[in-house]
Amino acid sequence: MSPNDAYISAPREITTPTGPRNEGQPSWNKQRGSAMPFARYQAFAQEVEDVQLPDRTWPDKKITVAPQWCAVDLRDGNQALIDPMSPARKHRMFDLLVKMGYKEIEVGFPSASQTDFNFVREIIEGNKIPDDVTIQVLVQAREHLIRRTFEACQGAKNVIIHFYNSTSKLQRRVVFRKDRPAIKKLATDAAELIKEIAADYPDTNWRWEYSPESFTGTELDFAVEVCDAVVDIMGATPDNPMIINLPSTVEMISPNVYADQIEWMHRNFAKRDSIILSLHPHNDRGEGIAAAELGYLAGADRIEGCLFGNGERTGNVDLITLGLNMMTQGVDPQIDFSDLPKIRETVEYCNQLRVPERHPYGGDLVFTAFSGSHQDAINKGLDALANEVRPGANNTEVSWEELRDTTWEVPYLPIDPKDVGRDYEAVIRVNSQSGKGGVAYIMKTDHGINLPRAMQGEFSAIIQAITDSEGGEVNSKNMWDVFAREYLERDTPLEQISTTIRNAETIDGEVTLSVKVVYAGQESTIEGKGNGPIAAYANALEGLGIDFEIIEYSQQARSAGDDAEAACYVAADVNGSKVWGVGIAGSTTNASLRAMTSAVNRALSN
Amino acid sequence: MSPNDAYISAPREITTPTGPRNEGQPSWNKQRGSAMPFARYQAFAQEVEDVQLPDRTWPDKKITVAPQWCAVDLRDGNQALIDPMSPARKHRMFDLLVKMGYKEIEVGFPSASQTDFNFVREIIEGNKIPDDVTIQVLVQAREHLIRRTFEACQGAKNVIIHFYNSTSKLQRRVVFRKDRPAIKKLATDAAELIKEIAADYPDTNWRWEYSPESFTGTELDFAVEVCDAVVDIMGATPDNPMIINLPSTVEMISPNVYADQIEWMHRNFAKRDSIILSLHPHNDRGEGIAAAELGYLAGADRIEGCLFGNGERTGNVDLITLGLNMMTQGVDPQIDFSDLPKIRETVEYCNQLRVPERHPYGGDLVFTAFSGSHQDAINKGLDALANEVRPGANNTEVSWEELRDTTWEVPYLPIDPKDVGRDYEAVIRVNSQSGKGGVAYIMKTDHGINLPRAMQGEFSAIIQAITDSEGGEVNSKNMWDVFAREYLERDTPLEQISTTIRNAETIDGEVTLSVKVVYAGQESTIEGKGNGPIAAYANALEGLGIDFEIIEYSQQARSAGDDAEAACYVAADVNGSKVWGVGIAGSTTNASLRAMTSAVNRALSN
Repeated sequence: MSPNDAYISAPREITTPTGPRNEGQPSWNKQRGSAMPFARYQAFAQEVEDVQLPDRTWPDKKITVAPQWCAVDLRDGNQALIDPMSPARKHRMFDLLVKMGYKEIEVGFPSASQTDFNFVREIIEGNKIPDDVTIQVLVQAREHLIRRTFEACQGAKNVIIHFYNSTSKLQRRVVFRKDRPAIKKLATDAAELIKEIAADYPDTNWRWEYSPESFTGTELDFAVEVCDAVVDIMGATPDNPMIINLPSTVEMISPNVYADQIEWMHRNFAKRDSIILSLHPHNDRGEGIAAAELGYLAGADRIEGCLFGNGERTGNVDLITLGLNMMTQGVDPQIDFSDLPKIRETVEYCNQLRVPERHPYGGDLVFTAFSGSHQDAINKGLDALANEVRPGANNTEVSWEELRDTTWEVPYLPIDPKDVGRDYEAVIRVNSQSGKGGVAYIMKTDHGINLPRAMQGEFSAIIQAITDSEGGEVNSKNMWDVFAREYLERDTPLEQISTTIRNAETIDGEVTLSVKVVYAGQESTIEGKGNGPIAAYANALEGLGIDFEIIEYSQQARSAGDDAEAACYVAADVNGSKVWGVGIAGSTTNASLRAMTSAVNRALSN
Repeated sequence: MSPNDAYISAPREITTPTGPRNEGQPSWNKQRGSAMPFARYQAFAQEVEDVQLPDRTWPDKKITVAPQWCAVDLRDGNQALIDPMSPARKHRMFDLLVKMGYKEIEVGFPSASQTDFNFVREIIEGNKIPDDVTIQVLVQAREHLIRRTFEACQGAKNVIIHFYNSTSKLQRRVVFRKDRPAIKKLATDAAELIKEIAADYPDTNWRWEYSPESFTGTELDFAVEVCDAVVDIMGATPDNPMIINLPSTVEMISPNVYADQIEWMHRNFAKRDSIILSLHPHNDRGEGIAAAELGYLAGADRIEGCLFGNGERTGNVDLITLGLNMMTQGVDPQIDFSDLPKIRETVEYCNQLRVPERHPYGGDLVFTAFSGSHQDAINKGLDALANEVRPGANNTEVSWEELRDTTWEVPYLPIDPKDVGRDYEAVIRVNSQSGKGGVAYIMKTDHGINLPRAMQGEFSAIIQAITDSEGGEVNSKNMWDVFAREYLERDTPLEQISTTIRNAETIDGEVTLSVKVVYAGQESTIEGKGNGPIAAYANALEGLGIDFEIIEYSQQARSAGDDAEAACYVAADVNGSKVWGVGIAGSTTNASLRAMTSAVNRALSN
């Protein structure tokens, strides 16, 4: 770590603009010395403990199989909503989770909320829980609450009863004002009570989960002591293990330290083989995903989280990002994310919170490239894939279904957007930061216009003049309109009215072309000869005093099939001006002649 | 890793609800076998290389000092906006970054955009760049672009010229179709050209930054070879080091592997002492923050990122979260975040993107607790801090300024919201998931009503009946309205019109009270005697046939000072019903009598 004293300076006074929102915010806080009161905060090693694990093994491991997933959207997620889910929203969320393939779903806190109690009864009585799905319910350790929880779950086939108490150093001191033995006794009393009451409800396959809540703020020796005592009381065995869930209730430190905590626990449980080790990361430092992945490497079996990371404060770990991160490494996530837009729509409906634009995999902008060099690289990457499918093909000539057989490797796109039900449409978007590659890509992909390389610069300069002056994005439709106005729709000073072609009778003979035109407001018929219609039209234009020389010429079909339109691109020298012209028509001859008229009009009207 | 075959099952067909948005999404993708095409993706170790660093040292390190920060909002951030910043928005962003204390600011790509060129000229010619701030500009390695870049920067005191080329295995193959030596030559040619042209512009303190773009997809031996060659050409020395920036251009793997890559580079540079090692993490896997922190532990000196994590796709690493994460560990972030709401407002204006509700430190909901047990713990944690300031005091009796001298340790609140210019107001919000603690906290904090513990349950049940039936949140104002309607505003069946108190002449004498009332629609004057007004009023009520016995009684001042109102709470047995009543008045006597009337009305009208 290099200290960088040069970068420490007296804080500056900040004035920020006053906008329409946030009126009445406190004025900028002026402090002497450092700008921020960092000395009020203690390093994790001082506040909780200095975790020591020099022989850690997790950094050398790799994820090769998905964990057991548990979705807690209906409980931990729901508890953090401004507007908690109505029964209708709860059912929608439950159905979604089941259909995506989650096999453990925490459905509520039935003893604390009548809504939750009713919901649990509804999914049981309505036979909404598939046989291979286990519901999980949270409960506090009081007899009447436990009894009510068992009542709520009667008739379900598989239920995980999840009980907890807070064990952290801080909460022991300021919330419970109890020492370690008294806090441990809360856990063991709860375990005994639950085991005792469960005996009255023999018809369900009960499983147990215990969380030392605020685990990340708990000293490891105490956490393992409490968990071991609970495991003993519940009589967990290798054949009938119980879940020990180690939540990062508040994310207090970087994820490598959480992973060290997990590996330490993993090694030090008295009966590790009787435990399913579960993680429950939150995201206060923005590191929940990393905490889950590194903690999983460190020995965990199971991860609890929510879709798109809903949950208290900064949220629970996002199960979608975790699953798709695994997919990018060739690991089966065991969950169906193939219609992510629909999943997102349902989650937004249930939570009444929008998924932000930059949210991994699901956000509006995460498969979008505005930068010209990124657009160019994506285009070439897709071409390389197409070329694997059919040598020589570019990416507009190969279908998505064909591409799906390739190993995905495209710059700036970690996954194929189509694999999660999204579209290439949004991949390339054009604004003032974009180059000719993005413009060319949209013209090709959306409009079947394969701009010659030498013409891309001319047209993208036209687009950039618009983005520079007007700001914002030029979408696909607008780009077409600009293209049509610039190249296809010009009819001054020259308008073609009708054309007659007479071929010579011999193969190498000349063609005679006669064209009725309006030129500079005057109608006339011009005539020319040449070895083909293009040469003949160039020759005819001389009759109007126009000197027309072809510099470059290319033609393409706009789509596959017999009835495809032809697009023709002509670079020409018209009375000394070098310009491009474009023509589109059913016949290749007409497309060529239109392209030439387009070039004449661009040269003479500019 | 425990394989969990039990959790693999045939994928289910999903139907999702159709909402008003996203009509026309592709129908749910039905596949045989696994739900997701994970086999299309390769593990990082196969796709790029298997990074080996068994003797890594970074997991045992701790962050104790902030890195050199470089804010790239005006370039990398701007390039990823739907609507890139207008000149006005650019100036606003630049001013904000300067005022927050950033000393290195990437201001644009002046050779690629006229807007950027003009902006650089404006801040130079307008003397907007403080002497201790260095601007940074991006450039591609072509002579005319480099010359234009130097022109753009003329007159600036300190400038970092940032040049780059892509070095990844994938881009070498599909984008550039060049082998390693040819890609290396792009970098060294650029370095030579820049050094040569710089000689023509001697009046500026030029510094150099080179990025092997797409570093995370580059084999380490090649990355270090290219960087070493560039460092040699630029003539970097320990006294005049150059920046080598190692971007996670696309986040391809978990942050521990990125940290291994950084530590490997840190150890293997030929001239490590002539290099400022810089990180530039993106966030495709949602692990940008972790990548920056672990990479910094691994030997970096400097971090590039954007405010609130703007940037291509999922964004650049968020400089605000990084800085405040450091603050939570007692490390001076060297940046002023003390008015985060204003910073956020400016960033939202400049980027035209909203900061999401759950964004660490800055989101609307990140300091909010809806859960009853969280609310209770926060309340007790704040009380414990208050008690440190003044033994015996609770948190409403100690001011924020006093609390700021304490070491911050409050459950569920990683930092004091006031340290970033936010309010406690939002901390406790009440909906159906909340308990009596949250209700009591809001009544105390916002309304100066210190509900007796025994009364909290009664009032929070009234609130919960509303949240259960109506959904959503009960805000502070609505809670007061409910409280006032329930306790303060009842005037049937008993209404006090006026009261006269006559004291006896001796100190221990009786008080005589006469009260004009309307009772059950009938006006009358009742009279009673007692050892104080309360006893006397209880006695007087007998005249109306009301049997009134005090069970519990307490009183408090609603605010400090002489003109504070008194709030009085009475638990009483009224004709056999046990109820609470509340009275608020300027005099303690009137408050008491009103509380008794309140109790009578609640008992007799229910």
